Amino acid sequence: MTTADQVQRAKVFHTLHRQGEILVLVNAWDAASARVFELAGCPAVATTSAGLAWSLGYPDGERLPREDLVRAVAQICRVVTRPVSVDIERGFGRTASEACMTVKALIEVGAIGINIEDGTDDSGRTLAPPAELVEKIEAIRALAKVSGLPLFINARTDAYFLPTADPATRFADAVQRLRAYAAAGADGVFAPGLDDLDEIARLVKAVDRPVNIYAGYAGVPSVVELARVGVRRVSVGCGPMQALLAFARTIATELGTGRTYAAMTDSMLSVAEVNGMFPAIRER
Amino acid sequence: MTTADQVQRAKVFHTLHRQGEILVLVNAWDAASARVFELAGCPAVATTSAGLAWSLGYPDGERLPREDLVRAVAQICRVVTRPVSVDIERGFGRTASEACMTVKALIEVGAIGINIEDGTDDSGRTLAPPAELVEKIEAIRALAKVSGLPLFINARTDAYFLPTADPATRFADAVQRLRAYAAAGADGVFAPGLDDLDEIARLVKAVDRPVNIYAGYAGVPSVVELARVGVRRVSVGCGPMQALLAFARTIATELGTGRTYAAMTDSMLSVAEVNGMFPAIRER
Repeated sequence: MTTADQVQRAKVFHTLHRQGEILVLVNAWDAASARVFELAGCPAVATTSAGLAWSLGYPDGERLPREDLVRAVAQICRVVTRPVSVDIERGFGRTASEACMTVKALIEVGAIGINIEDGTDDSGRTLAPPAELVEKIEAIRALAKVSGLPLFINARTDAYFLPTADPATRFADAVQRLRAYAAAGADGVFAPGLDDLDEIARLVKAVDRPVNIYAGYAGVPSVVELARVGVRRVSVGCGPMQALLAFARTIATELGTGRTYAAMTDSMLSVAEVNGMFPAIRER
Repeated sequence: MTTADQVQRAKVFHTLHRQGEILVLVNAWDAASARVFELAGCPAVATTSAGLAWSLGYPDGERLPREDLVRAVAQICRVVTRPVSVDIERGFGRTASEACMTVKALIEVGAIGINIEDGTDDSGRTLAPPAELVEKIEAIRALAKVSGLPLFINARTDAYFLPTADPATRFADAVQRLRAYAAAGADGVFAPGLDDLDEIARLVKAVDRPVNIYAGYAGVPSVVELARVGVRRVSVGCGPMQALLAFARTIATELGTGRTYAAMTDSMLSVAEVNGMFPAIRER
């Protein structure tokens, strides 16, 4: 299933984490956002799980059917030329075999990388045991080897995301987890919620993998500051979609109450320009 | 297939064209935009064919597969409580039976209204003969009767949209076409591209159906002015999505060149708020 072109895109994606400028990913949720971000100069496309779920009418958290995720990724892969990495949350399942089903389907439609997270256990208040994600990463790594694709596995811990996380222990917990995920086969590590520059610098030193920082909210250090302490990848998750939905609401409110179109017509891409972004033929 | 709830939504949609304030439709392209517009107070949801196609990775013009259109509409109908009307361009086919296939599938997933247009013939430079859309409307009206749904059929002529249209004859052509579409069973009429207030006022008087004006670009009279001359429905087509994609580009460009997040973080809906907009269960 894996094509030479797909292998090449995967290699490019690996290189973007190791060489040159820090990798900045503006996360997409559909074919249109992916194509706009690619044409604006983004060197790769990464999806936001929340934004993708929202666009299909679901809250975040693996609520949308796996086939809907795969179809949306196929639609994105059809129109972009850059590497595509997909946020699969906990794998769309609790078991390694379910996570492998998800990854296999995504590779078949063109993806070359994934984000996969430990998340919480059934209580929703405690992190899942690290062994769960370790097992998934090992299984996914084996699957990728068989498929011939150098899949980029970005392993995420929610040690900083969990509202109940203890500030005194979360750094140590994150390091321990991310090291375990790296040993299991992760190519990069991700700790969303971590936004203290000194602590970020310490994490970069503590884990021997490219570190991804989440910058989808106000108050995160700038890209330049993150790069200075050795961060290799910055992503913004559902931040752009949160901003666009706020703008959508502004447009609707102005039309509904003010009865005018100023917010909408102030700055628009032309219909011809957007039409020109997409291939008209149906075949991939 | 038609439920009592769906019939009720259709009746509400008819009433919105006849009574009370002018109907302002902020056109949606996916479940998220539909839900945001609904929650902002829009009394009904209407889709934009171009925006919907773009979000799935196709240019406008019936390039996306019919099943993709139907699936996207199902995703919208799953999350909104207001009436949903769908722009089906020329019906996703040249024949009345193809148009009926499209409408039947859309009714099955919850739609209660459609926009259908005459568009161009195969040359792409001349309007299709009005008999084509007349035949489609008659067939769709018969189909709706059988299904028990008072489907709202909004018939559109491209007499003003066509770049080659002759300004000296297009008003007469539009009136003749829209009268024929009304006689065939259209509940409302639509002439996108018509934005001269005097000419709009004349069209309102000339055709005995609620008139829809397209306001998805700068320079169209305000909603208040349109209402004053008797327009009953204003829609903005792909305008909101054109504006949002311009904003998406701004966010990506700022991140790519300025390395900052100001445009994104300036105004955002919270993750919790957006998650709360959508039902978590998969069943419709």
